[in-house]
Amino acid sequence: MPTLRHLASALTLTLASQVADAANVILIIGDGMDDQQVTIARNYLQGARGQLLLDTMPVRSAVQILTVDDTMDRRPVYVADSANTATSIATGEVSSRGRIGTTAGDDRDAETIVELARAAGLRTGVVTTASVTDATPASFAAHVSNRMCENPDAMVDITYHDIPLGGCEDDLKAAGGPGSIAEQLAVSGLDVLLGGGAKHFDPAVEGGEQSVARAAQLDGFSLVRSREELLGAPADARLLGLFAPSTLPVRLRGEDGREAEAAKPSLLNRLHRYLGDVTLPEPMTCEPNPAFDGTPSLKEMTDVALARLSADNERGFFLMVESASIDKQAHERKPCGSIGELQQLEEALASALDFAASHPDTLVLVTADHSQAAQLVPATSIFAKYNVPIYSPGLVARIITPEGSLMSVNYATNQFSHEEHTGASVPLYGNAVADGRVAPFIRQPDLFTIVRDYLGL
Amino acid sequence: MPTLRHLASALTLTLASQVADAANVILIIGDGMDDQQVTIARNYLQGARGQLLLDTMPVRSAVQILTVDDTMDRRPVYVADSANTATSIATGEVSSRGRIGTTAGDDRDAETIVELARAAGLRTGVVTTASVTDATPASFAAHVSNRMCENPDAMVDITYHDIPLGGCEDDLKAAGGPGSIAEQLAVSGLDVLLGGGAKHFDPAVEGGEQSVARAAQLDGFSLVRSREELLGAPADARLLGLFAPSTLPVRLRGEDGREAEAAKPSLLNRLHRYLGDVTLPEPMTCEPNPAFDGTPSLKEMTDVALARLSADNERGFFLMVESASIDKQAHERKPCGSIGELQQLEEALASALDFAASHPDTLVLVTADHSQAAQLVPATSIFAKYNVPIYSPGLVARIITPEGSLMSVNYATNQFSHEEHTGASVPLYGNAVADGRVAPFIRQPDLFTIVRDYLGL
Repeated sequence: MPTLRHLASALTLTLASQVADAANVILIIGDGMDDQQVTIARNYLQGARGQLLLDTMPVRSAVQILTVDDTMDRRPVYVADSANTATSIATGEVSSRGRIGTTAGDDRDAETIVELARAAGLRTGVVTTASVTDATPASFAAHVSNRMCENPDAMVDITYHDIPLGGCEDDLKAAGGPGSIAEQLAVSGLDVLLGGGAKHFDPAVEGGEQSVARAAQLDGFSLVRSREELLGAPADARLLGLFAPSTLPVRLRGEDGREAEAAKPSLLNRLHRYLGDVTLPEPMTCEPNPAFDGTPSLKEMTDVALARLSADNERGFFLMVESASIDKQAHERKPCGSIGELQQLEEALASALDFAASHPDTLVLVTADHSQAAQLVPATSIFAKYNVPIYSPGLVARIITPEGSLMSVNYATNQFSHEEHTGASVPLYGNAVADGRVAPFIRQPDLFTIVRDYLGL
Repeated sequence: MPTLRHLASALTLTLASQVADAANVILIIGDGMDDQQVTIARNYLQGARGQLLLDTMPVRSAVQILTVDDTMDRRPVYVADSANTATSIATGEVSSRGRIGTTAGDDRDAETIVELARAAGLRTGVVTTASVTDATPASFAAHVSNRMCENPDAMVDITYHDIPLGGCEDDLKAAGGPGSIAEQLAVSGLDVLLGGGAKHFDPAVEGGEQSVARAAQLDGFSLVRSREELLGAPADARLLGLFAPSTLPVRLRGEDGREAEAAKPSLLNRLHRYLGDVTLPEPMTCEPNPAFDGTPSLKEMTDVALARLSADNERGFFLMVESASIDKQAHERKPCGSIGELQQLEEALASALDFAASHPDTLVLVTADHSQAAQLVPATSIFAKYNVPIYSPGLVARIITPEGSLMSVNYATNQFSHEEHTGASVPLYGNAVADGRVAPFIRQPDLFTIVRDYLGL
């Protein structure tokens, strides 16, 4: 007959194994958050001698990004997009630009960490400041050959200002495919899905009459569309939150909405680069973006997700949190927008670390998907003594920082309406749980393996 | 009366304390070696899926660069030069651009790690592919207010193509100063000083008749001027090696000497950026630089230095090894040059790690002094589907890599003859001895403290 002591011992063992089972992963992705972006944000938010919360993370690594061309040869491509990088992280498969959860060349669906976690009984969540149908979130729970296939009306002959951008006919349900990204998310079984992209849930599902949003509700999602609805939503429901038609508004913007601007060389300087003079863009401050009012912060969305994913959960969860507009604002040459978005990532990270403090089996990882165009350049040229006009051939924002110095951010990867990504390896940060699980240098698909192994999937 | 066992025990203790005393530091600085440069070199030298020796280092950190303006206010400046960054590393003092071992505003001489090490009886060495009088090596053993004061003839009213670039009259011996960088190096007491910059040792010392080179010999240096002389030099002499008039030739160059070039837009495209077409620079390979023939490699110089610093040395040493032309070739928009130079750093690192394997109390650190202009950009724009001309407003090299893909490197920080530095934090790598001594995030002056504490100075 068991003694009280035996019972207590058995109870302890049971509790211990529950804790061990309830391993959680919070993966935070700063889209485009390379060391230039991190340093620009550090200087602005904390001062040059300050430190970000990111800087206090005990584990640090560098991640080599891998991309291949869309053939069976899979030749290296040295600069990625957010579709193939998120696919690397979510599935462990090196793929080609534009692909969501599918393989290069042969277009196979690659099983995602969310699908594996769900199958094992873990809860799953995806939170983003982009459309939930955007490349990064989509790659964790959908499979299409072209990231632009975000809703049922954008599957064939997608155009932008009459420019044909392709489609993904093979992914149509009529062709035996899984349908658009929004339709796949509606039936993804995710426990929490929060972000922007409401407009992609308005069209009717392929071959049906109800909207994608309605299909999501029929599949068990509670739908919330505002910050108030988010914060007041029933605590036990699976939650779909769509807080803007597309990308969520960002927190900071340039003074009066300004972005990076071109230097204005004098006529004489146009004749010879060492003659005449140049007028640089006026210095500017960053200011709150009025359009952000009423938008849930990334931290608020993360807090709601963590509460839902962890409540009465003995099995654990996987949560991906994306700070999307570090990248999106860099494409648009808006450094203040990127800085405010990195601040949002810092706040969400604080929530993640708080959660991990009371749930010690929580692995917290923060990384970027790829590098971006912005460069912190000298406010005064290092060749200023030569006393000739020296200026960027691209576009520059000269930002007055809170510590009263001038910080110049240069965008000069192309002359198109949007900057390019760049190819440098990106930082990876981990909490103490990551110690021994993450080498100082990894390839991006290794992230999938690290998370899968940690969750025992 | 002591037993044999007591004697053996005492002997062991003595040996142990000797080993502990003989702590060595090998600090390798890749000038301008940021994550863009590391990734570009990785892709070229090892392939996108390969890894550099750097990537195998067990300790990794990020280093925030600190620079201030040249006033007593010491306001933050967000982009550094190699003078103030080397001064941070060598002395722990945050200084202003252009300063060598001196403080911003009040122009104090800051004691360097080389001076501290020498005073404590350690041997010291400086090895570089730049002139030994260049900013990085100079900051470890000299003190002047202006990095351009490299020799006795360049102290007052320095000009370049008739452009006045200042000087450092206060540093003249006649003004009670220590004289030019070359003169200070000649009497620095360094055990090994190897690199380029012979032309700075030709002028007569201030107020004297003999050349700076002769002054160095009178102070105990054996002078070698070729690879053959270096490899055949007497094993016990203090060694000054000057293997080129200025910077040493680099190992790789672009095909036929090509560097990054401008895209050529059609006339129609000059009228509107979305019309017409553009001709991008022809792809090119990297090839051996004929001018490098006969130049000692960074590895050869490092091997000679390590042998001399460690032979019959019970007290230990400090050695700084600089791979200078990652930066210099980036200034000149020559990516093949930077790649070959990073390869030289890898070889020198291999020597350092070999040495540490047989001398376990050797701390090996590798870092960069500041970020640089080069960006790895898409060979095919990520917006290529839009089918309009898209190209960099700067200069681009399109390199055919050994694995047969095209890698585009963009230089677009200015329209001057030389690119700017950038402000991102830089990587730091350490061997196992660095474990627990280097946090995942540090400020650059912390490097001085880490080395000083490790050497017990």
